[in-house]
Amino acid sequence: MAMNKVINISQKLSLFDELWTPKIIDEFNGQQLKLAKIKGEFVWHDHAEEDELFLVIKGKLTIEFKDKSVDINEGEIFVVPRGVKHKPFAEEETHLLLLEPSTTKHTGDVIDKLTVKNPERI
Amino acid sequence: MAMNKVINISQKLSLFDELWTPKIIDEFNGQQLKLAKIKGEFVWHDHAEEDELFLVIKGKLTIEFKDKSVDINEGEIFVVPRGVKHKPFAEEETHLLLLEPSTTKHTGDVIDKLTVKNPERI
Repeated sequence: MAMNKVINISQKLSLFDELWTPKIIDEFNGQQLKLAKIKGEFVWHDHAEEDELFLVIKGKLTIEFKDKSVDINEGEIFVVPRGVKHKPFAEEETHLLLLEPSTTKHTGDVIDKLTVKNPERI
Repeated sequence: MAMNKVINISQKLSLFDELWTPKIIDEFNGQQLKLAKIKGEFVWHDHAEEDELFLVIKGKLTIEFKDKSVDINEGEIFVVPRGVKHKPFAEEETHLLLLEPSTTKHTGDVIDKLTVKNPERI
């Protein structure tokens, strides 16, 4: 078994600038840990079988649901339960740590120009 | 399905002072997200089937292994793979976010005075 390395979140965030393009930074227990930079609106989608955790590193993430919206600020965590349609949004550039099962598709069954099929590992 | 609430890490950390007593703050995909405050030495243990993620919120976590030790500073992440014996240590009070499967026992098969059998949810 290969021993893991220490992962520095800031250093990993310095490696990319693309928006809406999650990068895998670790994988364990069948889950992937990802970093993403976002700004503006994403697409409506859901993940039928996967809960999705968002931790805001910098900025503010708004997640819209059919009947409400939730603001998640720096140092805050929110889990979108499986099967719930949602649309992420950020007014300013926002940096996120994401945790979700390795089976999770970026935009669920929706295919959009923003869809990333095979996230890069950094 | 009940919608989750936004979790503020600092607010949750303000709810307890006990050391080496992880508190569950969320549960999803069969994993538990926990917060812990630690200082001093823990016990040698391993988790046969579970990888364990540590994210340092404040301070510095040292994890000793049989053949080396690893320092994990604020804003850094480290995953201890399943089956690997390890002993956490912190010189100063250190605050951690932990992520591990809900089946994980605090000190693996080791029973110690520090062992917490049923972590509280806060």
